Amino acid sequence: MNFSKEFTSAILIIGNEILSGRTVDKNTSFIAKWLGELGISVEEARVVPDKEDVIISSLNELRKKYQYVFTTGGIGPTHDDITSESVAKAFGRKYDYNKEAYTILEKYYAKSDFNEGRKKMARMPEGAVLIYNENGSAPAFFVDNVFVLPGIPSYVESMIPQLKKILVIGKKIISISCDAKVRESSIALDLENIQKRYSDIDIGSYPYSNKDGFGTVLVMRGIDEDKIIKCKKEIEVMIKKFNQ
Amino acid sequence: MNFSKEFTSAILIIGNEILSGRTVDKNTSFIAKWLGELGISVEEARVVPDKEDVIISSLNELRKKYQYVFTTGGIGPTHDDITSESVAKAFGRKYDYNKEAYTILEKYYAKSDFNEGRKKMARMPEGAVLIYNENGSAPAFFVDNVFVLPGIPSYVESMIPQLKKILVIGKKIISISCDAKVRESSIALDLENIQKRYSDIDIGSYPYSNKDGFGTVLVMRGIDEDKIIKCKKEIEVMIKKFNQ
Repeated sequence: MNFSKEFTSAILIIGNEILSGRTVDKNTSFIAKWLGELGISVEEARVVPDKEDVIISSLNELRKKYQYVFTTGGIGPTHDDITSESVAKAFGRKYDYNKEAYTILEKYYAKSDFNEGRKKMARMPEGAVLIYNENGSAPAFFVDNVFVLPGIPSYVESMIPQLKKILVIGKKIISISCDAKVRESSIALDLENIQKRYSDIDIGSYPYSNKDGFGTVLVMRGIDEDKIIKCKKEIEVMIKKFNQ
Repeated sequence: MNFSKEFTSAILIIGNEILSGRTVDKNTSFIAKWLGELGISVEEARVVPDKEDVIISSLNELRKKYQYVFTTGGIGPTHDDITSESVAKAFGRKYDYNKEAYTILEKYYAKSDFNEGRKKMARMPEGAVLIYNENGSAPAFFVDNVFVLPGIPSYVESMIPQLKKILVIGKKIISISCDAKVRESSIALDLENIQKRYSDIDIGSYPYSNKDGFGTVLVMRGIDEDKIIKCKKEIEVMIKKFNQ
């Protein structure tokens, strides 16, 4: 990407179900869109299995490389939920009951229902700060620059208002698009010339086809709104030339 | 994952549009499902931007680590399509016109329409072997163990029959699931005990909620069908206990 980034981040999706193809990952798109509005650019996303050594090594690589890392998945009650323990190991911290999380879960479940699996959801790396689940059940947490979120998209969504208060944010990343009703291979050269003149804007070209034929959506991204609008006008003039 | 893998792979999704959140990546799920049937396990997936140094370093890491790497995206005609050139650089090979690809594109486009952008789609790493596009337009290719596929899911799909003939395949990865109509936190401990007894099967636990309440889908994956069926029976007995 071309424009200068104030804040960078990576998303680490943890879960065999994505790598087996069973589940389409929707968290990356959702989190990335929301981060863009906060001026935090997503530079990389990874999907790794529920495997401790892989989670630890990926996390240690990403948390040093980017200002923020957002993980999703693997913080539930079952044997395949190993994210919290892996995060603790990645940071070299103790993995034990977080008192506040334990109290929340104790209140949420009836006494006879507060079994080992449910208690496990209160175990976190030492020093973890909670991110509450609006429905009162298991909270997520963050440690340093790593935000450990649930895998269920609606749970992630419910935590956004809190995350907004925690994250140090930058200038909103603006994204404007226009529909060129021509094949992208027709406009490739002209588009490249425009991109060269707007070095701090990312111009993306995305071909599509539908019943009316072929077309291309052009997307301009950056933080300088005036420049993006100027760039868009140039693109529109260029498109007109091909639609005559 | 627990069961022993004959063939491992990684998927490298190349494209700013996934990292900006504009597009939900559907290729990972599609390719992973199809590879599972061929006995090729997907161990990791990464999404990287249209940025040469990042593509090269990711590719060089993944192609040494896994038996196969599948990239998608960035092989079109526009300035932001830099995958082929990056792959050439990763392998230290020349990036030039592939004669066969050039001939295909020359036939596909009318002479006056065969512009620089369209010609660019014939440029590949030296020694690339073509994977044809069924509609007669731009082909994909592979170099060594790296398969460079388009970003448009329907194009990828049309290349599957050819890929099946090229890839050396393993024992089909079998996936069976059952629906436990109880919360996953209720069955966590029992499920963990079953997982311990079936060390070469991956048991995944995926909670859901709908109008009828909460439930959990349990997924068993492995290559030994008899064992998976045996494991499933144990799980069903366990579920019954909670549904009484």
